Amino acid sequence: MDVIGERINGMFKAVKNAIVEKDAGVIQKLAKDQLDAGAHILDVNVGPSAADTAAAMDWLVKVIREVTDAPLAIDSPKEEILEVGLKAAGPGSIVNSTTGQKEKLDAILPLVAKYDASIIALTIDEKGIPRDAAARAEIALAIVAAAVEAGIPTDKLYIDPVILPCNVAQPQAPQVLEAIKQVPLLADPAPKTVLGLSNVSQGTQKRELINRTYLVMALGAGLDAAIMDPLDSDLMDAAITSELLLNKHIYCDSFLDAYRK
Amino acid sequence: MDVIGERINGMFKAVKNAIVEKDAGVIQKLAKDQLDAGAHILDVNVGPSAADTAAAMDWLVKVIREVTDAPLAIDSPKEEILEVGLKAAGPGSIVNSTTGQKEKLDAILPLVAKYDASIIALTIDEKGIPRDAAARAEIALAIVAAAVEAGIPTDKLYIDPVILPCNVAQPQAPQVLEAIKQVPLLADPAPKTVLGLSNVSQGTQKRELINRTYLVMALGAGLDAAIMDPLDSDLMDAAITSELLLNKHIYCDSFLDAYRK
Repeated sequence: MDVIGERINGMFKAVKNAIVEKDAGVIQKLAKDQLDAGAHILDVNVGPSAADTAAAMDWLVKVIREVTDAPLAIDSPKEEILEVGLKAAGPGSIVNSTTGQKEKLDAILPLVAKYDASIIALTIDEKGIPRDAAARAEIALAIVAAAVEAGIPTDKLYIDPVILPCNVAQPQAPQVLEAIKQVPLLADPAPKTVLGLSNVSQGTQKRELINRTYLVMALGAGLDAAIMDPLDSDLMDAAITSELLLNKHIYCDSFLDAYRK
Repeated sequence: MDVIGERINGMFKAVKNAIVEKDAGVIQKLAKDQLDAGAHILDVNVGPSAADTAAAMDWLVKVIREVTDAPLAIDSPKEEILEVGLKAAGPGSIVNSTTGQKEKLDAILPLVAKYDASIIALTIDEKGIPRDAAARAEIALAIVAAAVEAGIPTDKLYIDPVILPCNVAQPQAPQVLEAIKQVPLLADPAPKTVLGLSNVSQGTQKRELINRTYLVMALGAGLDAAIMDPLDSDLMDAAITSELLLNKHIYCDSFLDAYRK
């Protein structure tokens, strides 16, 4: 699976302060720590509070690029911020994210094609977040069609079927697992699937247990990637052990360490 | 899911000693502790070392019956021991186990019918343990046919697709998950599925992590029951959280305690 490290996000106070104070060390340590812990891709989000968001994104990406060539997921609701991030990050980037709303797709897909990027697309349309797997697959299919039309290969699509907190939308959790099984059947080459994992446990009192249990079930259903916290070592252990038991990497007694190296 | 507690087994030294010394307290405490931890069914196995195995099974079941009416899984390779256990345990028992070998089915299924019991049947035939999901389903189908012929309702069948240690038969782990998905489709009412869970981690150095990760994926695939250690509280937490996220019981902040009560 692709572990997309979620920790470089202006929602976190330390990151917000580092952006304001231009403290590159804090950001670079977070980048290295996440990669050492097993992340393959780093999400980069300036958060809601930077005065000049475009300048903040540019700075963030550039200080990360000083320490790693790992792919970055440029995370912003605004097209102009996405473009600044894509320019600074270089090839192999991921745009995070679009929804299935026509207006949003029309704005973002050309940018994805221009920078030869991948794209995370949430199964949300004009009517909001669907209630079941079939409606999620229907939006995913519309996204696939729009991507093909924009010249984006279908395996550069990461469809996110949108997991909601289990304390308020519990019946949706198995529906999202079902959607994860259906998405790869929508095109050839198969679109990938991704989850913003921590949303499943939002507002609950057992966040880490719920996160890792849902991740293991989602990987069993075929999930390709997750935006998650690689510094949660129990979560990473669960992910690594899931892939072991799905026969994705070979058993050795030190399989947990072997994967991280 | 049905948690079948595995701890009353003469393979464990404390149980073996309790059988030899007729120490009912040790057995009764193990029964109560497993039920308090969330077990629904208790496996009862005298182990290999009792001098008079039939008498030992009779004694074990009777001392357990002094403290609980929970269903028991009478666990022995010998028909005469199974019958002693079934007689002492009363209705609602499970026979653990038969294979799909004709001779074995011919010997055990009449006993299952006679005592109105359920039966755990391993997908093993004259050629041994199959290598893939399809061959497991084929043996399961033969077991279903034999059960129907013996007058046993198909939902009293627990098919065990036989998980092997991941350090020696790693490619089989995903095959067994696939078999778990296929078995319910073989008859109506659907046969159940069960795993002897701890086998997956036999000989590895991360037994508890591997056990609970595989259990979560198996529950995601539709597993109905597992023979497992309910006193492993991380394993029980993983099982309870899986069922929560499959929408099998309703969320509350204290869902872990609520389930155990």
